Amino acid sequence: MVHWPKSVNIKEVGPRDGLQNIQALVSTEGKINWINKLSHTGLSYIEITSFVHPKWIPALADSLEVAKRIERVDGVTYAALVPNQQGLEKAIEANIDEVSVFISASETHNQKNINKSIDDTYPILKEVVSDALSSNKSVRGYVSTVFACPYEGEISISKVMKTCEKLFEMGVNEVSLGDTIGVATPKQVEEVLSILLKYYSTDKIAMHFHNTRGTALANVTASLMTGITKFDSSIGGLGGCPYAPGASGNLATDDLLYMLDGMNIETNVSKNKIHDAALYIQDVIGEPLFSYDSKISRKTLG
Amino acid sequence: MVHWPKSVNIKEVGPRDGLQNIQALVSTEGKINWINKLSHTGLSYIEITSFVHPKWIPALADSLEVAKRIERVDGVTYAALVPNQQGLEKAIEANIDEVSVFISASETHNQKNINKSIDDTYPILKEVVSDALSSNKSVRGYVSTVFACPYEGEISISKVMKTCEKLFEMGVNEVSLGDTIGVATPKQVEEVLSILLKYYSTDKIAMHFHNTRGTALANVTASLMTGITKFDSSIGGLGGCPYAPGASGNLATDDLLYMLDGMNIETNVSKNKIHDAALYIQDVIGEPLFSYDSKISRKTLG
Repeated sequence: MVHWPKSVNIKEVGPRDGLQNIQALVSTEGKINWINKLSHTGLSYIEITSFVHPKWIPALADSLEVAKRIERVDGVTYAALVPNQQGLEKAIEANIDEVSVFISASETHNQKNINKSIDDTYPILKEVVSDALSSNKSVRGYVSTVFACPYEGEISISKVMKTCEKLFEMGVNEVSLGDTIGVATPKQVEEVLSILLKYYSTDKIAMHFHNTRGTALANVTASLMTGITKFDSSIGGLGGCPYAPGASGNLATDDLLYMLDGMNIETNVSKNKIHDAALYIQDVIGEPLFSYDSKISRKTLG
Repeated sequence: MVHWPKSVNIKEVGPRDGLQNIQALVSTEGKINWINKLSHTGLSYIEITSFVHPKWIPALADSLEVAKRIERVDGVTYAALVPNQQGLEKAIEANIDEVSVFISASETHNQKNINKSIDDTYPILKEVVSDALSSNKSVRGYVSTVFACPYEGEISISKVMKTCEKLFEMGVNEVSLGDTIGVATPKQVEEVLSILLKYYSTDKIAMHFHNTRGTALANVTASLMTGITKFDSSIGGLGGCPYAPGASGNLATDDLLYMLDGMNIETNVSKNKIHDAALYIQDVIGEPLFSYDSKISRKTLG
């Protein structure tokens, strides 16, 4: 029998990874109200925004105002994505608890994503991480294209290992391994994690799955088997329309929660409150969400 | 490390479980053309129809004509659902290779589904199974509501065990365990299978998952871990609109195949040919399919 973990830490990334990837623009008030709802669901971690230049992500141009005006609930870590020193300054100004830096395991993807080679990215991240730690922020490192790259295809485990090593050397508290294009399958997840977990403990690693091909919860299952207890997800599956209407991107928090509840794995998150927060943002954006839970509920609730 | 199975037998149920559960009516020619396409995908098992009274499932009223007129490809087992002696006679007339009988692990669901108690159902099935075996047909037994019943809630493993025991006593060659309302989670699947597999070998058991809550491939993953190698699925996820447009019912063959291919688990099924057969039935019914594969492809192919 598998020794399933007793508890899991769900890391909500909807306000950042969700909103930056949908067409609909959400007002500052809408974002603040929504994040405040999320703060009362039992979630202990919410990535609320990204301090990137508005030129790149206009949807999050009000990041500083949102970060300053949301309610801060005890026990919740409020995090934000930070690409560089300018972003870090804003994160510090907004009194963010944790900052996230990001890099790709694939040279081509990193180049296309931030217009720099991997080797040229490390020094920038190193400075951000160092300054963030000096300012008493915890730091998370996102590694994208861990399982495959849209340009290079399969990514070797050694590239992933090297990226993790570099990030941990800088002092990040955990890394989040991203299946950026949603191609991973459970055996691959098990293989990558079984190697990584020889070097790092489970509390150092989070998994960030996309449900593009319907395999996200299968990959969570494989991760749970290896002892992983931290998962990124986006409420309602928000943020995923990479291919066509109805196709899903981010793993949906509500569907992840359904599965974990069914497995008696403790999350401290209220299914009903997550459901309400999902319906709220669905109303705001005016489009159906991607999660199974939200589809079932629409019908059940009439 | 998990010992994943080396190969899996995909049992296509779309022409029966798919067509009986959608609004669109497909012409006899459409069914025959579609099944003929499926016969050339590498699938070794296709459940082509149900010999129930047309009063109950008008969509399959042409079952005898379809069964008689399809091409029979070597190496493919052509199966049909049979509720009683009248159905079995038609199955024999149509020279079906395998017949499937069905019963529920839940008293209330069985009563609502076939208007009989479980105890009153056994003698009917016993006669059908016996006569089918005498006619050199192999027999499969479907057990529905294995993980939960829409009326009774959770179903005890002992009820599932008893139902399986009864079916195997009758002489069925395998049972297919159905998560009829799509509520199962991987831990529950592992628990049920770890008990069943103490009594029956893996070749006696197939799993039939619905993706209502997005957990079907996660449940396949848990099943694979226990050594299960037979899975029912429906091409394109056809047959599932139990709650709302866009909500999924049957596990989609194309998505299952994507995952198994990614895990290097052999199926002998061609992804491209399954894809073509999915697009064919999508055109026939004139509605988008539910599978992730079909959504990605619609966009990718323009």
